[in-house]
Amino acid sequence: MDSNKKMTYDLIIIGSGPAGLTASIYASRYNLNNLVFGKKIGGTIGLAYKVENYPGFRSIPGLDLMAKIEEHSKDLGGQIVYDPVQKITKRGEPASPMSNRGEQDFIVYTLSGQTYQAKTIIVATGTERRTLGINGENEYLGKGVSYCTTCDAPFYKDKIVALVGGSDGAISGAVHAAEYAKKVYVIYRKNQLRAEPAWINEWKNIEVSGKGEAIYNTNIIEIKGDGQKITQVVLDTDYKNQKELVVDGVFIEIGGVPGTSLAQEMGIEMNDEHFIKVDKWMDTNIPGVFAAGDCTDFIYGFAQMITACGMGALAARSAYVYLRKEMAPQQRGI
Amino acid sequence: MDSNKKMTYDLIIIGSGPAGLTASIYASRYNLNNLVFGKKIGGTIGLAYKVENYPGFRSIPGLDLMAKIEEHSKDLGGQIVYDPVQKITKRGEPASPMSNRGEQDFIVYTLSGQTYQAKTIIVATGTERRTLGINGENEYLGKGVSYCTTCDAPFYKDKIVALVGGSDGAISGAVHAAEYAKKVYVIYRKNQLRAEPAWINEWKNIEVSGKGEAIYNTNIIEIKGDGQKITQVVLDTDYKNQKELVVDGVFIEIGGVPGTSLAQEMGIEMNDEHFIKVDKWMDTNIPGVFAAGDCTDFIYGFAQMITACGMGALAARSAYVYLRKEMAPQQRGI
Repeated sequence: MDSNKKMTYDLIIIGSGPAGLTASIYASRYNLNNLVFGKKIGGTIGLAYKVENYPGFRSIPGLDLMAKIEEHSKDLGGQIVYDPVQKITKRGEPASPMSNRGEQDFIVYTLSGQTYQAKTIIVATGTERRTLGINGENEYLGKGVSYCTTCDAPFYKDKIVALVGGSDGAISGAVHAAEYAKKVYVIYRKNQLRAEPAWINEWKNIEVSGKGEAIYNTNIIEIKGDGQKITQVVLDTDYKNQKELVVDGVFIEIGGVPGTSLAQEMGIEMNDEHFIKVDKWMDTNIPGVFAAGDCTDFIYGFAQMITACGMGALAARSAYVYLRKEMAPQQRGI
Repeated sequence: MDSNKKMTYDLIIIGSGPAGLTASIYASRYNLNNLVFGKKIGGTIGLAYKVENYPGFRSIPGLDLMAKIEEHSKDLGGQIVYDPVQKITKRGEPASPMSNRGEQDFIVYTLSGQTYQAKTIIVATGTERRTLGINGENEYLGKGVSYCTTCDAPFYKDKIVALVGGSDGAISGAVHAAEYAKKVYVIYRKNQLRAEPAWINEWKNIEVSGKGEAIYNTNIIEIKGDGQKITQVVLDTDYKNQKELVVDGVFIEIGGVPGTSLAQEMGIEMNDEHFIKVDKWMDTNIPGVFAAGDCTDFIYGFAQMITACGMGALAARSAYVYLRKEMAPQQRGI
């Protein structure tokens, strides 16, 4: 091996959430030389106050769980670099099965100006929650503001919560929240919910019971609190002659924005909402490029940590099978 | 509610491995009244000497990990009954969306003679490893005998191992084992491997390197040891004038037998190898019946704990969505 030549990784993984780190764990188990790029520890799940549905951990802060998984992947040989990836380019065509693949296929450019080379790529960039962009929203994140009803509803037993949104995700979330909270307000900017009828029927029954109330044509314009937790939300319409609602929590369920601009620039196929199209083996349309987790269209609407991990494992397996088939055996060091 | 009537569960889960217990965790989180039937704690993964690829646990005996997950599911309200299910029958058709579903849809009969009623079923019965059925095989299970190369290959660093089989799973396993072991014997009853060419090419290179050796037209007829671990395997042909090979481990990779006879009797659609056909939401062909984990055809050939857990979560979510849509709201206690 020419030591002047820059090293080429078997696999570069973009994203350090559950999907990316599980991909690294599996890749290391397959003896693939792998590197993970992240923006922050733990991805979206790192924001969760507590995770109580990841099998094996009864209750654990999201960040603590992801720290364990990061440790796990590092211990097996995965390297994690917190230097956001700016661009990925492709050089040359995939080698034919019997070729002596001499050149790298992908070049990864990071924010700090470094470049890295890899034979395969896994895109596991997750989503960014769509935010309201109002005062108090950032300040009370994890202190009453949540972007994940499924994750956090159980923490609001016998409390009063507001939920922003009108989609399937929002209204199923409101129904779920009503199983715990004593009162749920749905606040929606339009005059009619757009969730599917089954969810709306459920919600209507919650309203009839007095436990739920929908406030239409209305936005939350500010979140107020006492510094430790939220206390009120401010509306842009009058509600029962008041502009404020007293609440313990606000669920903001106005969708996620997939972190797929990188992937789009590479020519990876997306659905209309910019989630990456994958088959059940996590293959994208580009040979040697796989995707996993919330940034994919695979089980859109069910963004759970355990399923993201499963997809990460699958993507690593697919990268391994791809490398085994495409590479000349002598390059495997056998 | 008529207290003389037998209780009807929202969901009965057949199988107490990773898929079944994760389904229970998610079902409980969805407030579904659920019951799990098992044969033994932990399913196939309970047999693993150590699990090192389940994210968050760097290294843990399979049984210990499954005990944690069982505890997790019980703590959330899941009940686990170790009374093998003998039969499941279906009564009536699924209720229409607006009907007041008064009668149970499924009746579960157990070995001890009990019957249970449920509105939905998740089949998560896993696989039984196909065994050689020879002396020493049971005795040295976990003491040198393994049915999962992917799980256990890393424990044989610089050791000598034999691997029984000639399929994709076997030869990919042999290649994987050669990344750790100093010597790998493949023992196959036929005169030619039947794995795909890419795997055979890899294996041939391992043979050329001197690290691998295939012994054809041969069976292992006995596994010998010192009581603590295996020391030799006995062959039914002469190999270099000997009938025995000195080895530290034996991987038996002759396939899995899905535990799907129950499912077959219910009329669930299977593939030719008797794995349950599911879509990506874990729906079977029978409304209200879902399946998850190794017993499905979903990602056949990649039977990993993390993916089984993901499938269990998905199946529970699908059962929840099904119940929400099918049941009259007043029955949800809203």
